[in-house]
Amino acid sequence: MEPGSRGAAPGGVSVSAVLPAGGSGERLGGATPKQFCALQGRPLVSYAVRAMERISWISDIIVVVSPENIETMKTIIEKYGHKRVTVVEGGITRHRSIFNGLKVFAENEFSSHLLQKPEVVIIHDAVRPFVEEDIVSKVVMAAKEHGAAGAIRPLVSTVIASAADGCLDHSLERARYRASEMPQAFLFDIIYEAYQQCTDYDLDYGTECLHLALKYCKTNAKLVEGTADLWKVTYKRDLYAAESVIKDNLSQQVCVITNGKETLAQVGFLLPESLKSQIKVEAITVPLSKNDSRLQNIISGQCYNFVCVNDKRCAIQEAQELADMLEKSNTPLLCPVVLISVHLDISENNSFSIGMEDLTTIKKFARETKKKNILVYGLLIQYKKFPLISYVFGYWYGAEVVWNGCLAQAKPQNPGCSWCRGCAWEETSFSQ
Amino acid sequence: MEPGSRGAAPGGVSVSAVLPAGGSGERLGGATPKQFCALQGRPLVSYAVRAMERISWISDIIVVVSPENIETMKTIIEKYGHKRVTVVEGGITRHRSIFNGLKVFAENEFSSHLLQKPEVVIIHDAVRPFVEEDIVSKVVMAAKEHGAAGAIRPLVSTVIASAADGCLDHSLERARYRASEMPQAFLFDIIYEAYQQCTDYDLDYGTECLHLALKYCKTNAKLVEGTADLWKVTYKRDLYAAESVIKDNLSQQVCVITNGKETLAQVGFLLPESLKSQIKVEAITVPLSKNDSRLQNIISGQCYNFVCVNDKRCAIQEAQELADMLEKSNTPLLCPVVLISVHLDISENNSFSIGMEDLTTIKKFARETKKKNILVYGLLIQYKKFPLISYVFGYWYGAEVVWNGCLAQAKPQNPGCSWCRGCAWEETSFSQ
Repeated sequence: MEPGSRGAAPGGVSVSAVLPAGGSGERLGGATPKQFCALQGRPLVSYAVRAMERISWISDIIVVVSPENIETMKTIIEKYGHKRVTVVEGGITRHRSIFNGLKVFAENEFSSHLLQKPEVVIIHDAVRPFVEEDIVSKVVMAAKEHGAAGAIRPLVSTVIASAADGCLDHSLERARYRASEMPQAFLFDIIYEAYQQCTDYDLDYGTECLHLALKYCKTNAKLVEGTADLWKVTYKRDLYAAESVIKDNLSQQVCVITNGKETLAQVGFLLPESLKSQIKVEAITVPLSKNDSRLQNIISGQCYNFVCVNDKRCAIQEAQELADMLEKSNTPLLCPVVLISVHLDISENNSFSIGMEDLTTIKKFARETKKKNILVYGLLIQYKKFPLISYVFGYWYGAEVVWNGCLAQAKPQNPGCSWCRGCAWEETSFSQ
Repeated sequence: MEPGSRGAAPGGVSVSAVLPAGGSGERLGGATPKQFCALQGRPLVSYAVRAMERISWISDIIVVVSPENIETMKTIIEKYGHKRVTVVEGGITRHRSIFNGLKVFAENEFSSHLLQKPEVVIIHDAVRPFVEEDIVSKVVMAAKEHGAAGAIRPLVSTVIASAADGCLDHSLERARYRASEMPQAFLFDIIYEAYQQCTDYDLDYGTECLHLALKYCKTNAKLVEGTADLWKVTYKRDLYAAESVIKDNLSQQVCVITNGKETLAQVGFLLPESLKSQIKVEAITVPLSKNDSRLQNIISGQCYNFVCVNDKRCAIQEAQELADMLEKSNTPLLCPVVLISVHLDISENNSFSIGMEDLTTIKKFARETKKKNILVYGLLIQYKKFPLISYVFGYWYGAEVVWNGCLAQAKPQNPGCSWCRGCAWEETSFSQ
């Protein structure tokens, strides 16, 4: 998609988003707040912004941060190439921060220029990095119809009320209650009205936007069942978990690019097939073309693993073209992209070598692209002896070793599931 | 502590524990249930059993598993050397399984021999591996006084009730409610009475033991604030998190053993000090002696990293003694133990080498201990040139490389916190 173009929002409404990210270091004892902690080198808030940014029909993304973090946030936006983002100064509580975020659509004083008021506004947390378009879309649709909507999840633990003496008063029937999660969405006029009516007490001590819509605008929010990945990064263990999920996601897809020649296509198919026993991959084979919409979609969908197959022994032209396309997409800004350039030798002659000049060119190319966070590896394959991989530029490994080595940084730490091959980590709560 | 000896329980009561681990693969679609999934190669349930087993004043640990997993559970108990554990066949729901677990203390038919009925029984989950003695002790004390007690945690999300139309009915004031967690504890007679009175409906659809004690025995459980590490492994992300926490715990402590000579003690102090910039360690220096209670406590407290400093160039006697002690402790059964044998050369002569014979002896020793899950590494240090590490048996690394290499498998995946050095992953919920 060209920059600036917008897909249609669900229901044809105009939609913007507010991300409260205002927790200050002070409240955590002077240390960095969670939303600025790095996962795979990238701050948590950047993942949440990116999740919103990938949804083309969201017009503006307002990130609300505490005054001392405004510069940090602006640096993050620049570094990771975020678009459509406005940074707004937060208040001293979550509700006051969200209110400030909403004001940029309604009051001149809170922004250098008044942003266009959306019909529906999404509210999402900076510490929930894995939100998908599907749930955002459902919540927006429900908000359009009901005035307010929010994602919910089943309770993991029974909820209990304690009496004044610290003893159990009663426990809630788990099935009747839900955990209120994010994203939430509102008709802008409703949530803005609610915040305007809101008492100081609610602004200071409340946390639940759905509650404000109900209390001040008599709007009963529609509750939408969300997925397990909406969870909020709260504890240190959530940081570990989030990082593992990110790595998991990165390593699952590989795009194989061939020029359409039959032999090449065959290798393009065989290589990932033979490696599937070593690493879980979803291989997609496409030709290399700037105008191929499938390839463009794959790149903009943040694929981080590419195999480029050609039949020229050392030519790097195709790898160079792909590297250029990747660079333009900004994808490598987020995480390293692995590009394995496979050179297929289909000659009958079994002995060959790569000239020093070619090798120098290739190494220079790899060094240059590495600066752009694109890691190029080369494989030379003797097709007649396939799957014998006989030569790797600069690396004397077999193909599987290279493959695993290339993907190692994108691959999740193996959770050691030798015991439970095929175990069901269902996205459902597990009781009994 | 000698096998069989017991510390005194809080309040002097007799205490046993029931761990429901009865979730069957069938309920998860034929796959392995979570409690049998491996973290660092060891099933989750084994961590929970070990957490109970380490508390010396718990007499019996009843693990309740579904019929098809009884043999699996027995294999786990044997493999990991668990003591004081009785495996009991579970029922079709959580409550029925717990009831079966309690029956082994009260009814002959459920065990080959009737176990001695405890005054207080702990109920804990097999999928909560990180429970510490402190919270178990508090819950037991509170149960002795109040008849029932359970650990609680603040709610992470707002809890809401939905109306019949799927819209928000009301949201609960978060501060007034808590999540009910484990462990829980009860006077045995109270919880057993509650289960005997319990309707089939409650046995089939309930999950909360505190609720049964209240409903059937009018016992209002005392609620005890628990720590964040009590969380239940529920989703796949929890598996990632739990494994990271385990690795984190393993790598934090190193025990340095010296024979008491001043020079050795100095190196024993300097080595971890100089490495602290590379890896976070808590070093404890003790002499090597089978009768030293501090060393015994460290080994039984599951330290996995040892540095043994001596001034004999190649003697492995001390490393051998320590390896024997470790083997007897069963610690290496759970996770690999790293043993770095540091040989200090205090001679004025700067050039030396290790004879082939010595090297062969050392390598043979390392191979043998590796079979017992004790990984021996050797370092030869020229003290006059300290901290120059000049020779490593079989490995040509500097000390830091060896150190990091040795601990790599016990070390957590770095969560990439370059951004948030010193960030506060407080064990508190983070709102705003």
